[in-house]
Amino acid sequence: MKTRDHFLMKAWYAAALSTEVDGEQLFHRKILGKSVLIYRTADGKAVAMHDRCPHRFAPLSLGKRDGDQISCPYHALKFNAQGQCTHNPHGNGHIPKAAQVDTFPIEERYGFLWIWMDPSEPDLSLLPDYSPLDIGHPNALAHTYMHLPVNYELIIDNVMDLSHIDHVHGEIITTRGKLSPIVPTLRETARNISARWEWSQQPAMMIFAPFLARAGDEAKQFFDITWSAPANIQLTVAAVQDSDSFDDALDQYDLHTCTPAGPFSTHYFFATRRNRIVEDAEYNAAKIAGMHAAFEDEDGPIVKAVQDEMGDEDFFALDPVLMSNDIAPVKVRKLLDRMIRAERQAAAVDG
Amino acid sequence: MKTRDHFLMKAWYAAALSTEVDGEQLFHRKILGKSVLIYRTADGKAVAMHDRCPHRFAPLSLGKRDGDQISCPYHALKFNAQGQCTHNPHGNGHIPKAAQVDTFPIEERYGFLWIWMDPSEPDLSLLPDYSPLDIGHPNALAHTYMHLPVNYELIIDNVMDLSHIDHVHGEIITTRGKLSPIVPTLRETARNISARWEWSQQPAMMIFAPFLARAGDEAKQFFDITWSAPANIQLTVAAVQDSDSFDDALDQYDLHTCTPAGPFSTHYFFATRRNRIVEDAEYNAAKIAGMHAAFEDEDGPIVKAVQDEMGDEDFFALDPVLMSNDIAPVKVRKLLDRMIRAERQAAAVDG
Amino acid sequence: MKTRDHFLMKAWYAAALSTEVDGEQLFHRKILGKSVLIYRTADGKAVAMHDRCPHRFAPLSLGKRDGDQISCPYHALKFNAQGQCTHNPHGNGHIPKAAQVDTFPIEERYGFLWIWMDPSEPDLSLLPDYSPLDIGHPNALAHTYMHLPVNYELIIDNVMDLSHIDHVHGEIITTRGKLSPIVPTLRETARNISARWEWSQQPAMMIFAPFLARAGDEAKQFFDITWSAPANIQLTVAAVQDSDSFDDALDQYDLHTCTPAGPFSTHYFFATRRNRIVEDAEYNAAKIAGMHAAFEDEDGPIVKAVQDEMGDEDFFALDPVLMSNDIAPVKVRKLLDRMIRAERQAAAVDG
Repeated sequence: MKTRDHFLMKAWYAAALSTEVDGEQLFHRKILGKSVLIYRTADGKAVAMHDRCPHRFAPLSLGKRDGDQISCPYHALKFNAQGQCTHNPHGNGHIPKAAQVDTFPIEERYGFLWIWMDPSEPDLSLLPDYSPLDIGHPNALAHTYMHLPVNYELIIDNVMDLSHIDHVHGEIITTRGKLSPIVPTLRETARNISARWEWSQQPAMMIFAPFLARAGDEAKQFFDITWSAPANIQLTVAAVQDSDSFDDALDQYDLHTCTPAGPFSTHYFFATRRNRIVEDAEYNAAKIAGMHAAFEDEDGPIVKAVQDEMGDEDFFALDPVLMSNDIAPVKVRKLLDRMIRAERQAAAVDG
Repeated sequence: MKTRDHFLMKAWYAAALSTEVDGEQLFHRKILGKSVLIYRTADGKAVAMHDRCPHRFAPLSLGKRDGDQISCPYHALKFNAQGQCTHNPHGNGHIPKAAQVDTFPIEERYGFLWIWMDPSEPDLSLLPDYSPLDIGHPNALAHTYMHLPVNYELIIDNVMDLSHIDHVHGEIITTRGKLSPIVPTLRETARNISARWEWSQQPAMMIFAPFLARAGDEAKQFFDITWSAPANIQLTVAAVQDSDSFDDALDQYDLHTCTPAGPFSTHYFFATRRNRIVEDAEYNAAKIAGMHAAFEDEDGPIVKAVQDEMGDEDFFALDPVLMSNDIAPVKVRKLLDRMIRAERQAAAVDG
Repeated sequence: MKTRDHFLMKAWYAAALSTEVDGEQLFHRKILGKSVLIYRTADGKAVAMHDRCPHRFAPLSLGKRDGDQISCPYHALKFNAQGQCTHNPHGNGHIPKAAQVDTFPIEERYGFLWIWMDPSEPDLSLLPDYSPLDIGHPNALAHTYMHLPVNYELIIDNVMDLSHIDHVHGEIITTRGKLSPIVPTLRETARNISARWEWSQQPAMMIFAPFLARAGDEAKQFFDITWSAPANIQLTVAAVQDSDSFDDALDQYDLHTCTPAGPFSTHYFFATRRNRIVEDAEYNAAKIAGMHAAFEDEDGPIVKAVQDEMGDEDFFALDPVLMSNDIAPVKVRKLLDRMIRAERQAAAVDG
């Protein structure tokens, strides 16, 4: 049962969409098996800490704000945004040294709050660059969040092997059978696995065809995806007519990122940026609705059924029949596994 | 916790009623802890296979039919009725040798689809003869299916000890206290345990009395039950007046058969054939409705409460106080246990 | 996971409110992990026995009464109030010696049925004296019952550390911040831990203020609580004006008592007696409604959240930061733990 807590610790995970945490609320989310409290201080900066009072373990997210401080709902110990106890209303008011809540570094970028769950110094160089999300008209950018009762690696598998799209999804993103026969070109680095498919289809995917010069005609297309540890996938999909290059293509840049709540419970975040009808807010909303429909009605039920069928067995232990379309997700599973094992060995040596 | 997977493997289990699997659908049922897909090929023959694609473990029952073949809902690998992969839309289309789904022999008889879950050669001589179900007017035959969250041996216990009927059930099948005092006559063979009770009562059971010459008068009755491994019970109940023999008796022949879904989840199938008002379809429907009512409102809640009380403890480990009415069910539990242990020992020697 | 079955056995637990068990019903409750049947014989005396027929483990509480006897719902074995089988309708009617249900001594006092779950001789001297409940007008006495999916020690913690009340509860029982700074005076005996807080506040708690001579003025108040093993807490709260003593104070005497159903499931019983407006039945009803509201809306959700956060970890193993307000509940946890360990050692030596 390798899956149980097979998590990379020294990494940035999406803890929440920026919009999920407003200036008032005490936001709770389970991350890597831990209860986490997230809120914004008066200056708008998001902070995160263990959502557990060190006294009697009540969740601080059920407590009250007092400016930037939080008082525990049970016995009103007060903690500042650094997790230090600042007030004990009991007895002589002495504050025990141990009355300190673990905090977690939060970095807000690209419309997400990224969290570093490991006690080590956070390494910002390990947060991938998703700046394409930031560039362009605000109405051409959208984010969303879903939750799935499955192991996070099954969602990575789903996105890393795009060969499923013609078989699982409807007309809107079909490649008309062109994608499956292609063995993608791979690129690999120490923390990234990329895959690229290029083909022509007629007409183009319906997300592009109406915006091309000749909607019904053939177009050149590509998918380019890059996984970065631990569970982030950047995906670019593009279509062009009358050109050998993709320089002036219609394209769409998506970020899929997964954060394990626990071994069989995953937060699934999604962001998307397009370069067509960029001012159309209604189209933007419809696009996110379509993403929900696709995942909740199409991928989701299958991935959930796969999880039910696998139970708590490890993927490779079940002896899957692997094929050319598995090359990218299998490389990801193996690299991630090596990284987690290396991290644990290093911790064992240090500790 | 002997109960967990205490299943006889080399045996025929009822997988479904014939009517549960029509010509179109991809029918799913959990059997002995395994997901099973059942469907009918164009010639009407039922086939069964592991409901798990060997690629990424999606249930094939969520996929699509293409004639007699099934394509996986996730990546569209196609399998024929023999479980062989016949089409891989990915890469160069090469079909890995391992892309083969385990199939299970299905034998359709007596209105049931019988399945052989063991990898060994199926042995048709081990499927008991329930041909009495086949003989007579179609309106005098009925089948039904129920599911119960209990270990299957508790349901066998229930049917093998008919002494419960005067205490659990209502007027319709009461023996008016005559059954309990009788110690049944037993017959035993290598794979069967039978028990027989004979008595007189006045009036006869209400399922018979209105159809006898003198409804209110005394009648001779018997119950004769035969358990066959693993979990099949044939039951005949009869009533006669003015005769020393049962040759011209009103009788009813029932088959109770249980198929474990898992250790605490059982498929309970029932079929019944009568020799009174055999053309009366309405009576037939009422009879099945009555069977549901009896089991769901009377036996079912008690058997479920027994399971809750036993938890995952073994029956004999809980030290039951056994009495003369337990003789048949205890013989069944012990013979079944010996058969399962013998089967495992043989497997260990072979393996 | 010390919590799993960390129960004191040689002790009286509240099994039910007297009013929960009328003269007809077969009352079922899970106590210390065991199914218990409680009913009243014709003379009104409550009896308790294992709610499990020794034959096939059906709950006797699903059976039928026949005078003071109970017949099993499954095969109609009949048992008397001493748990002896008195009738076997099967075979020759022989009653096996082992056909005996374990009974549990019940003592009815103070509006509760107290049960002794250990097989040893019950020791009435171990049932604390709650006679203050018995003295006074019937309309000044009320009882209630709640169930909580938490370990019982978390509820004891809640009541033993009253410093939470200003932070968790509303206006009605606030001490206006006076309680928390006080380190209570402790008293200890072999089976009891007591704590007492005394202070003045203006105005008095709202449960008292309207009944004092000058509702808005300062009053002297105290809380005095005594825990008795295993899980009983007597609480007196009082208020007085114009007097150095509490002899003529308004006071309220409460009993909180917890009975584990299982490790994470607790029956919580409550009784209360007051010496103000003692004939006012409407006030009495409102008081119990208020107790439900306070526990179900205020303490309950926090205690439940604490349980969720602790999972099945032991309290001390989680390294709580303890403060002066924890002195009483920690003494209780440690004394109870010593008593349970002593009881087990004695059992191991005897056994």
